[in-house]
Amino acid sequence: MKNYTDLFSQDTFSFFRSPVRDIFKRVDLNAIYSFAGGYPSADTFPLEDFRRIMSEVIDRVGAKAFQYGATQGVTELREALSLRYGVSLERVQITSSSQQGIDVCTRILADPGDVILTSSPSYLGALQSFRSYRADVRGVAYDSDPDRFEAAYVRTAVAALNEGKRLKFIYSIPDFQNPSGETLPLEHRRRLVRVARRFGMLIVEDSPYRELRYEGESVPTIYSIDPDITLHLGSFSKIMAPGFRLGWIFGHPDVLDMIYVCKQSLDLCPPVFDQYVAAGFISDGSLDRNLEKSIALYRNKRNIMLGMLEQTMPEGVSWTHPEGGLFLFLTLPEGFDSVRFYDTALDAGVAYVAGSFFYPDGGGHNTMRLNFSFMTADRIREGIRLLASLLK
Amino acid sequence: MKNYTDLFSQDTFSFFRSPVRDIFKRVDLNAIYSFAGGYPSADTFPLEDFRRIMSEVIDRVGAKAFQYGATQGVTELREALSLRYGVSLERVQITSSSQQGIDVCTRILADPGDVILTSSPSYLGALQSFRSYRADVRGVAYDSDPDRFEAAYVRTAVAALNEGKRLKFIYSIPDFQNPSGETLPLEHRRRLVRVARRFGMLIVEDSPYRELRYEGESVPTIYSIDPDITLHLGSFSKIMAPGFRLGWIFGHPDVLDMIYVCKQSLDLCPPVFDQYVAAGFISDGSLDRNLEKSIALYRNKRNIMLGMLEQTMPEGVSWTHPEGGLFLFLTLPEGFDSVRFYDTALDAGVAYVAGSFFYPDGGGHNTMRLNFSFMTADRIREGIRLLASLLK
Repeated sequence: MKNYTDLFSQDTFSFFRSPVRDIFKRVDLNAIYSFAGGYPSADTFPLEDFRRIMSEVIDRVGAKAFQYGATQGVTELREALSLRYGVSLERVQITSSSQQGIDVCTRILADPGDVILTSSPSYLGALQSFRSYRADVRGVAYDSDPDRFEAAYVRTAVAALNEGKRLKFIYSIPDFQNPSGETLPLEHRRRLVRVARRFGMLIVEDSPYRELRYEGESVPTIYSIDPDITLHLGSFSKIMAPGFRLGWIFGHPDVLDMIYVCKQSLDLCPPVFDQYVAAGFISDGSLDRNLEKSIALYRNKRNIMLGMLEQTMPEGVSWTHPEGGLFLFLTLPEGFDSVRFYDTALDAGVAYVAGSFFYPDGGGHNTMRLNFSFMTADRIREGIRLLASLLK
Repeated sequence: MKNYTDLFSQDTFSFFRSPVRDIFKRVDLNAIYSFAGGYPSADTFPLEDFRRIMSEVIDRVGAKAFQYGATQGVTELREALSLRYGVSLERVQITSSSQQGIDVCTRILADPGDVILTSSPSYLGALQSFRSYRADVRGVAYDSDPDRFEAAYVRTAVAALNEGKRLKFIYSIPDFQNPSGETLPLEHRRRLVRVARRFGMLIVEDSPYRELRYEGESVPTIYSIDPDITLHLGSFSKIMAPGFRLGWIFGHPDVLDMIYVCKQSLDLCPPVFDQYVAAGFISDGSLDRNLEKSIALYRNKRNIMLGMLEQTMPEGVSWTHPEGGLFLFLTLPEGFDSVRFYDTALDAGVAYVAGSFFYPDGGGHNTMRLNFSFMTADRIREGIRLLASLLK
């Protein structure tokens, strides 16, 4: 066979590999200090709850749990989510992972060249998906002043319109952002809605970490501010376990209907048995019990990481103080290159994700993302000490 | 919000709804005689095997079975498939359903307007996926003479080239085709390979039913004839249970690598726990035991359906004699319209899928697809009797 490249679609030339997933291919995560990845702690997976609920599903639902299911998802699970989050049933679509949620929203909305506005930095998996459809992704830096924050989005939108571009949606991870760990204040969320309304865009609100809050008050979702222009993406990965590959989308029924038709040809329906298990996990209280334990565990790990950074990091290094989620973001002195430093760190046995990968328009060379959920408290201590000594 | 249609991508205008999935929305399958759908019999789901294997996976693999997994799929499952089918490990990619296999192959290969050649009739879910990428799908009718069969493919390919089109792949379901139930002879498979080689196309061999053979000799796969230009799609849906949403692709590593990168942004990885369960199901012999039982069950149902058709159908009606799989295909007298007849049938309590939905270029108005796997033998008897009486 000659070169397959001749046969590949145009989209494939915009595909790019996740450096995070490539790290996982290269090294055994348990053999190094891994601050890379967004893995929950294995200690948060309640294996005996899973075993019990699985057995109950087999008893109660029987063969139906192993048959093809509805494309929208299993009604029992949609109802459990509807009840838990106060969203009406026709506004709930189950997805085969919240990554699929991002992908399917992009698929039904973005043609090549269409503009997606996103915070900068932003989630790498979302950038992969956006680029894979050849969307024109434009990053907007955060500003603590709501007026300047809004003005930056307006400026970026107007610039795109002046180039004859079509604006499609704003992508935001308002709670404990990936990678920064920061949370968007309520007023900023209102401004995003105002910008979206003004330019006729939708908002894709990616919300996998929302329930992992370790301090402070919960901020209303963007979806709650404007449910008709917001597609809210939820995930079971951080509140139950990622191995089930289940997420959900809340949105306007007209948009969900298009997602429903798209999903027919993508994979017919989400994993059926897993959906019944997730429904059982919510309705028997396991989810809330597990969440309480996870929050206590992660709060402690975050505190330990913050304390260790304070103790060990050389001058000129700063970091975010996340109120929840799995990550914090380190900024090193100007001129530091965290991509180049990466091999040194990995050779010494410590992994992180270079911050520049999260910037859609370049930049962030002196930043890195550190995960604090995956390793034990002791290994976080040792790993930060090692990282700090390498940086000095 | 104004009309969302203004925001939808161009692809969405080529989406079409599955009439099969819409039937499932309209009616309770257990309340009617359903010859629609491609549902396996719930009697083939070995619930106690599933329960035992799940518990074993929790004991043996533990938390890792619930963590994020590799994008290529869990090694244990890839190894089990590699061993079972004699395909080297680097040629095995796990998919989140074999429908996803079809979709991801189309995604990485077809730009809008690119040509896909397919048998006519062909699987509806594949046509949905092809059209959703705005591919130019061209059907080629079956001919029992290999020369004429090959010539028809060549003619269709040349015609497309003369229009300045790019040819991408041939889609084939060689074993117990959906919807016809027919099997492509070895010589025809060789001719497909020759056509693909001649025009520099790939072949997507969709093979969900292959192991459900009730009589006759197994024919070599197209993949075995030419593994470098063939992407072979397998499925756990018919040999284990559809509720797990797992399939696989065998193919050249260069093509699988592109599918791997694509899958990162689609959904990161297939369901992890389910993959361990599938691996256990293969390696402890459950799959082979279950296959033997399923084959005996379905052979009997097929025989009953064939016998009942012989007994009850009016003159001028003919049907295929499938050696395996889940379907047979009925041809009614010219002028009969199975789409128009559908409401009459459903009102009387019997469902089928109108054959015209399977024809990419129109036609087949006097055909219908009948499934014999889903219902019990008794209900097949009653349902065929009812259908025949309605047709008279």
